[in-house]
Amino acid sequence: MQSSEELLEIIDKYIKQLELQNPPAELYNPISYTLNTKGKRIRPLLTLLACQMFSENIEPAIYPALGLEVFHNFTLLHDDIMDNASIRRGLPTVHKKWSTNTAILSGDAMMIESYKLISLSPNNKLQDVLNVFSKTALGVCEGQMYDMQFEDRLDVSEEEYLKMIELKTSVLLAGSLKIGALIGGASQKDADLLYEAGINVGLAFQLKDDWLDVYSNPKVFGKKIGGDIVTNKKTYLLINALQKADIDNKNKLIQLIGNKHFNEDEKILSVKNIYNRLNIGDLTLQKAKEYSNKAYKNLESIKIEEKLKRELTELIKRLLERDK
Amino acid sequence: MQSSEELLEIIDKYIKQLELQNPPAELYNPISYTLNTKGKRIRPLLTLLACQMFSENIEPAIYPALGLEVFHNFTLLHDDIMDNASIRRGLPTVHKKWSTNTAILSGDAMMIESYKLISLSPNNKLQDVLNVFSKTALGVCEGQMYDMQFEDRLDVSEEEYLKMIELKTSVLLAGSLKIGALIGGASQKDADLLYEAGINVGLAFQLKDDWLDVYSNPKVFGKKIGGDIVTNKKTYLLINALQKADIDNKNKLIQLIGNKHFNEDEKILSVKNIYNRLNIGDLTLQKAKEYSNKAYKNLESIKIEEKLKRELTELIKRLLERDK
Repeated sequence: MQSSEELLEIIDKYIKQLELQNPPAELYNPISYTLNTKGKRIRPLLTLLACQMFSENIEPAIYPALGLEVFHNFTLLHDDIMDNASIRRGLPTVHKKWSTNTAILSGDAMMIESYKLISLSPNNKLQDVLNVFSKTALGVCEGQMYDMQFEDRLDVSEEEYLKMIELKTSVLLAGSLKIGALIGGASQKDADLLYEAGINVGLAFQLKDDWLDVYSNPKVFGKKIGGDIVTNKKTYLLINALQKADIDNKNKLIQLIGNKHFNEDEKILSVKNIYNRLNIGDLTLQKAKEYSNKAYKNLESIKIEEKLKRELTELIKRLLERDK
Repeated sequence: MQSSEELLEIIDKYIKQLELQNPPAELYNPISYTLNTKGKRIRPLLTLLACQMFSENIEPAIYPALGLEVFHNFTLLHDDIMDNASIRRGLPTVHKKWSTNTAILSGDAMMIESYKLISLSPNNKLQDVLNVFSKTALGVCEGQMYDMQFEDRLDVSEEEYLKMIELKTSVLLAGSLKIGALIGGASQKDADLLYEAGINVGLAFQLKDDWLDVYSNPKVFGKKIGGDIVTNKKTYLLINALQKADIDNKNKLIQLIGNKHFNEDEKILSVKNIYNRLNIGDLTLQKAKEYSNKAYKNLESIKIEEKLKRELTELIKRLLERDK
């Protein structure tokens, strides 16, 4: 068993060795630029951790694991165009640093690179891995479409929101685990249990993310508190507040959302006051807890030695109990 | 042996049966919309024609053939954003009819759909087919990047231009042929010969395309003559004229290109006069002829019965001798 730290070193070593220096430079440089920013490499790590639960040899899973990281970074690149985001991981986004056309085209090339890496899966697993990957990849696109559509809506239901974050965030974590498990030789049943675990981890992770934006400790968080409130992002908190508020508070929220000219700190405070009155923070943490418990149950159901699950369980704990 | 007409019917039947009606509608509708416009289906036809040169059973090649058509249509969808094109095959482009964000995201989903179809290749050919497909797909992206870069340049060499159209147009035709051949059971050598033939057909095709824009019969052509001249498109004709013109004509050309306010018909006439003086039309046709001869030689080198090559040879003839 290798530790997460050891696996992350392997991932970083292999990412550095990817051959992305072909001409034309303007096509490939944005790909290297994106891949070399400080990502947490969670998806490839999940793949390798899942693989080593079932096999001592993680080597066949390394390139597919990188494929999942490249795909994830591709989605960020294209999402940043759609969201008109200027900064990603502290650096200018590709469409700002180069151009929108370059970002579209380099993103396309990046998705092809991710399939090239996935295609390096062992031959006898290739069809299965490709099926999981393509289904996952389409799910992420579906999630992004729902996310964009929600921007113009005030009546998004909790169910719709959970479905959206399942697609946009969870399925790629779930797919990463399942692909690692399949390559490691897991049974279909165990691979599916890990997929389920990934879905639940993703949901818990995103709910915690929504909560941290409002309730994290400013000294630890590292980003400005309330960024989602300022941009009217449809989070679990806002959606529930809109559903649960009485008519006065609902109108107040709608007015705060609609107001184009506002003082950021005042807006954050007003929205947070409504959240507090409705106890939305606790509701969110409770829901996150519900999903993380489900994830741990999924892991328990896998019939292998406990010590083989330890590294993955530890990683999931760190992801869900983070404070930034 | 099935005729091209019979194969086209199969292709159209299967395209209609593709399941692209999932929610969210705004993600999948632009894909159906794009696939159901009147394309010539050349790429899947090439795949099936190449397959039946080596196998009586074309069935295993049908879905991969559709994958090539879906990929081609994906490139048109994203290219239309980058070129800010309003009309494609007589209909509004996706980014005009929906939005740029929808066009980016539906295009991404469409590329994934193309890989899903490619993944349906027979298991024992899957890795080879994926390798050809991904290499081809990256080549198309590289070609599009060069094409965009050429827009701002007046010093594009003939060699650079030929490399660009090889990537942007030829490699996908070549890849379509090679994939069909591999699935049909061709030897690596024969599959490579068909790839070479595809490269040469693509080059001849694009040069003929450039020539038709200026010299086709207006009664037959169907589009306005001189469209490339109006938009300053770097065609084989313009690039050669810029290289071969004396200093006076070169300055005249540069002035015509730089002029923002002009009468279209006058501009077309002036540029065409320079082409005529330099005999650029014949030069272009001669070069196209050179490549089509190479393509026929590639086909001749394939050691199978002549009658097995007939349908493909006929299609290539029709492509290269077209007058619109």
